[in-house]
Amino acid sequence: MVIRLASLLLATAGTFAAAPAAAQFAKTEDAISYRQSAMFIQGQHFGRIAAMANGRAPFDAASAAANADIVAGMSKLPWPAFGAGTEGGKARPEIWKEQAKFKELSEKLQAETDKLQTVAKGGNLEAIKAQVGAVGQTCKACHDDFRKK
Amino acid sequence: MVIRLASLLLATAGTFAAAPAAAQFAKTEDAISYRQSAMFIQGQHFGRIAAMANGRAPFDAASAAANADIVAGMSKLPWPAFGAGTEGGKARPEIWKEQAKFKELSEKLQAETDKLQTVAKGGNLEAIKAQVGAVGQTCKACHDDFRKK
Repeated sequence: MVIRLASLLLATAGTFAAAPAAAQFAKTEDAISYRQSAMFIQGQHFGRIAAMANGRAPFDAASAAANADIVAGMSKLPWPAFGAGTEGGKARPEIWKEQAKFKELSEKLQAETDKLQTVAKGGNLEAIKAQVGAVGQTCKACHDDFRKK
Repeated sequence: MVIRLASLLLATAGTFAAAPAAAQFAKTEDAISYRQSAMFIQGQHFGRIAAMANGRAPFDAASAAANADIVAGMSKLPWPAFGAGTEGGKARPEIWKEQAKFKELSEKLQAETDKLQTVAKGGNLEAIKAQVGAVGQTCKACHDDFRKK
């Protein structure tokens, strides 16, 4: 089965002017479900690239690139769902106490997954391995500080 | 806060050659979580456009377009997570018995959300209202037959 990501890929321009979280999510549980959903989808697709990078799955350049597109896209989504008043789930309260640090790490993830997207398009497995490592370290740095054990 | 969807929007081309579900998801629960996550995110963003269409939220053309980009992108994701052997969750067993019908409805959703993306870029509220209706009917048609009550 071939799944066309046309609408993801052919879109041409834009920014998403996000309203405050209170205006975006009807209730706190929705914000929690939203950010967990985005992280889960991202993790599934990152895991598929990591499996290729680690030799647990055969390398397929087209699949790596397609998965990296989704990882990079999903990495943009979770953050508005950590708005004021949405504490809970796996999120540690430190997120709301150390906003600058959390924001910095969230931006680093987006930058590193954008690089993974670029590298994956190049199709060089060694370069993909290196960038998978960089993304993985970025995930871990944030989870170590801000996700409940 | 402005969230740049650069990696979603600047990507240039590609198709996602999906492996069989068994190869994609480590376990059935992952497939169920994945499809529910994708549907939830899609529903949240569609809900924001629908709120504008229904007059429950002020119309903001840039926000409508950005949300429609995400709806169209997310509408591509759930389907590989309905692979053989992944029955469960809110999915009715009919999905696996009426594959042609399910596929047809899933493709209709993707086509209608692509149209919503195009219409939302145009910024005409009346056109957006009409296409929100078309997408909503497509959601409902599939949920009526294939989602547990």
